[in-house]
Amino acid sequence: MEFTVQQIADLLQGKVEGDNLVKVSTLAKIEEATSGALAFLSNLKYESYLYTTGASAVIVSDTLELKKPVSATLIRVGDPYSGFSTLLAYYQQAVLASKTGVEEPCFLGAGSTIGQNHYRGAFSYIGQNCQIGENVRIYPQAYIGDNVKIGDNTTIFAGAKLYANTVVGSNCTIHAGVVLGSDGFGFAPQPDGSYKAVPQIGNVVLEDNVNIGANTTIDCATMGSTIIRKGTKIDNLVQIAHNVEVGQHTVIASQTGISGSAKIGNNCVIAGQVGIVGHINIADKTTIGAQSGVSKSVKETGTIIQGSPAFDYKQNLKAITVFRKLPDLQRVLDELKERK
Amino acid sequence: MEFTVQQIADLLQGKVEGDNLVKVSTLAKIEEATSGALAFLSNLKYESYLYTTGASAVIVSDTLELKKPVSATLIRVGDPYSGFSTLLAYYQQAVLASKTGVEEPCFLGAGSTIGQNHYRGAFSYIGQNCQIGENVRIYPQAYIGDNVKIGDNTTIFAGAKLYANTVVGSNCTIHAGVVLGSDGFGFAPQPDGSYKAVPQIGNVVLEDNVNIGANTTIDCATMGSTIIRKGTKIDNLVQIAHNVEVGQHTVIASQTGISGSAKIGNNCVIAGQVGIVGHINIADKTTIGAQSGVSKSVKETGTIIQGSPAFDYKQNLKAITVFRKLPDLQRVLDELKERK
Amino acid sequence: MEFTVQQIADLLQGKVEGDNLVKVSTLAKIEEATSGALAFLSNLKYESYLYTTGASAVIVSDTLELKKPVSATLIRVGDPYSGFSTLLAYYQQAVLASKTGVEEPCFLGAGSTIGQNHYRGAFSYIGQNCQIGENVRIYPQAYIGDNVKIGDNTTIFAGAKLYANTVVGSNCTIHAGVVLGSDGFGFAPQPDGSYKAVPQIGNVVLEDNVNIGANTTIDCATMGSTIIRKGTKIDNLVQIAHNVEVGQHTVIASQTGISGSAKIGNNCVIAGQVGIVGHINIADKTTIGAQSGVSKSVKETGTIIQGSPAFDYKQNLKAITVFRKLPDLQRVLDELKERK
Repeated sequence: MEFTVQQIADLLQGKVEGDNLVKVSTLAKIEEATSGALAFLSNLKYESYLYTTGASAVIVSDTLELKKPVSATLIRVGDPYSGFSTLLAYYQQAVLASKTGVEEPCFLGAGSTIGQNHYRGAFSYIGQNCQIGENVRIYPQAYIGDNVKIGDNTTIFAGAKLYANTVVGSNCTIHAGVVLGSDGFGFAPQPDGSYKAVPQIGNVVLEDNVNIGANTTIDCATMGSTIIRKGTKIDNLVQIAHNVEVGQHTVIASQTGISGSAKIGNNCVIAGQVGIVGHINIADKTTIGAQSGVSKSVKETGTIIQGSPAFDYKQNLKAITVFRKLPDLQRVLDELKERK
Repeated sequence: MEFTVQQIADLLQGKVEGDNLVKVSTLAKIEEATSGALAFLSNLKYESYLYTTGASAVIVSDTLELKKPVSATLIRVGDPYSGFSTLLAYYQQAVLASKTGVEEPCFLGAGSTIGQNHYRGAFSYIGQNCQIGENVRIYPQAYIGDNVKIGDNTTIFAGAKLYANTVVGSNCTIHAGVVLGSDGFGFAPQPDGSYKAVPQIGNVVLEDNVNIGANTTIDCATMGSTIIRKGTKIDNLVQIAHNVEVGQHTVIASQTGISGSAKIGNNCVIAGQVGIVGHINIADKTTIGAQSGVSKSVKETGTIIQGSPAFDYKQNLKAITVFRKLPDLQRVLDELKERK
Repeated sequence: MEFTVQQIADLLQGKVEGDNLVKVSTLAKIEEATSGALAFLSNLKYESYLYTTGASAVIVSDTLELKKPVSATLIRVGDPYSGFSTLLAYYQQAVLASKTGVEEPCFLGAGSTIGQNHYRGAFSYIGQNCQIGENVRIYPQAYIGDNVKIGDNTTIFAGAKLYANTVVGSNCTIHAGVVLGSDGFGFAPQPDGSYKAVPQIGNVVLEDNVNIGANTTIDCATMGSTIIRKGTKIDNLVQIAHNVEVGQHTVIASQTGISGSAKIGNNCVIAGQVGIVGHINIADKTTIGAQSGVSKSVKETGTIIQGSPAFDYKQNLKAITVFRKLPDLQRVLDELKERK
């Protein structure tokens, strides 16, 4: 894809300063950009790069006063960062949308339907009786088990695996290697010390606008559904166990694990490598610091916790400060004991 | 699959109360069940749901005395929970068993054999000289390298990857995205600061009745075998390094990592996000709390440890209690120092 | 593959003691070896096994004096460990090299080129406009998106997923289930509490001699590249976020996570389950202990840290020693307070 600077300026309702026929084909940071790239300058901390950049064009503010000559063509707009973000979104959308049609061989089971304008990559597998919406992209080697439902405009990247009966909403993104609907980890101890699997016959439900990062795993419910509510974003290598419910617009960073039947509220922020035990409730707008171990319910909205086990993050910070001085504390204490 | 309540009652040797021709096609929790579903009531804490449930039928105890009218047909049995569990197991088994035959295209290498009544999904790959038992289900996009052996009644879900020379016993379940037999992480430092890979020519051996959760990785041994003994259950996203041995009937929860050459005993319970260093031994029946870091061998059977680094869990709990009050301790100590 | 002991001895420039026509077909540890296997004895702690081993042949030192009769044929060399390592490397290389040619069906997109002597397994997918070097092995069900570049002698194991625009150097090994180039976890909070995805249009670049372990995920940069420099070795289930740079010859153990835009130096050693926050710099030759949480930059070369949050590892060890005795400290402190 190649555009003239004038085309970009028209799109952003901006004004060209310099050669309006210069062509750009990619987007880059101003400090890394080379010929053919379009960059932007928003934070004036980076202004010096404007005079040295290799970019063919740079989006700058209406109000910027140049201090030196600039070789790049300028596009002046009200808010350069916002303008550039708009272009980024167009760019990514254009790349995704360029995938349409069906690559052979791929597998479509009996009774399954898929809406118009879709992409099915080679070696993708769709089982029986699936209902798949419009503008859905199913990349190569993705696996969609029987009876799965997928809403419009959802993208399933290469090699993601959706077990039978999974439900995925509209405008979702499922990254490569994700597993949705594997058996919950339920095993009943037997008198002889062995374990017997508890059958897991539920499913996984993702509501609309959910993102799931690469190689994340979400187990099906024992019965009923493991649910991720609308707008929630989950990073890579996260584990969500059976019968968990995660609320709306919650963000969960990489390598966090949530144990069975925990209920996470709306608008929570959970950092990386957090562990949450089973059967507890986390209130709305809870923030949980990285590597925390959450062992009991959080009842108050807006709580911030950290630590393993986690408690109030300010108290935790203070305790950690003293922890580092523990050898000193002990020495002082030993001296005091010796005092008469 | 659809059954009359009478058929279910006959299976469970129970007695029907109400319309014995009502049909059910799924299983559900009593509080979530809708028409067509069969539920159960075991814990009387939930008795109120019996009078409001949408279930078409409910399994209840022989001895239950109704307090109000019930619209669902009842199936009375000695132990409702056990009866329902029996049905769950039948249900899951029926779903699995419904997969038989060979979907094309799939790949079967020269010299490989596979027993009767198997399922091979589309795009599944079986290398050369594999020996695969009866009633084995190999889901789409699973990869079975050369010289792999798999016992009877084992299920390999979609996209699981078994490197060459892996051995899997009977009645095992390998979930989607699992990797068995990838190279152990062995690199010898060179004088120039670079690393040279230590060749990893061993394999992975799973004995009978082993379950491996989604996206878990088990590396091959440098030489010999990384071994998971019979009946052991491993959750999602677990890492088992080269030359590890895990004993029988041990349970390992999600995101735990076991480093090279560690030996884990029988009947251990290892919670989530635990780390175990290499070359140590963990005694039988050891319990390790979540997020623990185990840095030395556990010698006594039945030990319970927690913490990072892990030690006696009761001592750890007490230490944590004081940890949270450390700022107070320091203040008191500072005051005492000032005393004359 | 089968060799006579004489052939092995010639390769290692060693001297045969015993039957030089005995054949060996595999390599094993001296304590586990059975007939047909070649073992070695380097550490004399294991000398007793020499007299009882089932190995057909054993590599021993030139200078070893036998204390008892030995049934295995001996190969005497200057350094038995080094000799055995040489054979291991030959063995692994031979196994890999035995894979050549193209298994059908596999997918090769328009405009893509691949060098001679390659292997493409069944159901492997190569998108459009890829440039792939010589002696490259692409195992079954691997996914190579559009515009990917791969250097010579690189191996991509089964089911690894390389998103569009990924660049992989020469002599790299990418294990099964790895995901390179998935979207970075960037979401801008909106006034209504929802999140909007920040477009991620960068890529992942691996330089030469990089190893990536099974099911590890490396996100693409928002713009520009997430970079792993030459010679770096990354274990299984590691998470590398967008715009991270990892230096040369750094080793990262399993289940570690590195957050966005962190810069890791050369020749660092990062143990398992470590978490590193975003936008910090880790100096060259830093060592980070297992389960550490690194929350700020490490400025001095050769620093060793541990703990969560991490600080000087010796100080951390001392603090932990006192931590375990905290209940005692508190008791002593309580007693002192009571003193008049």
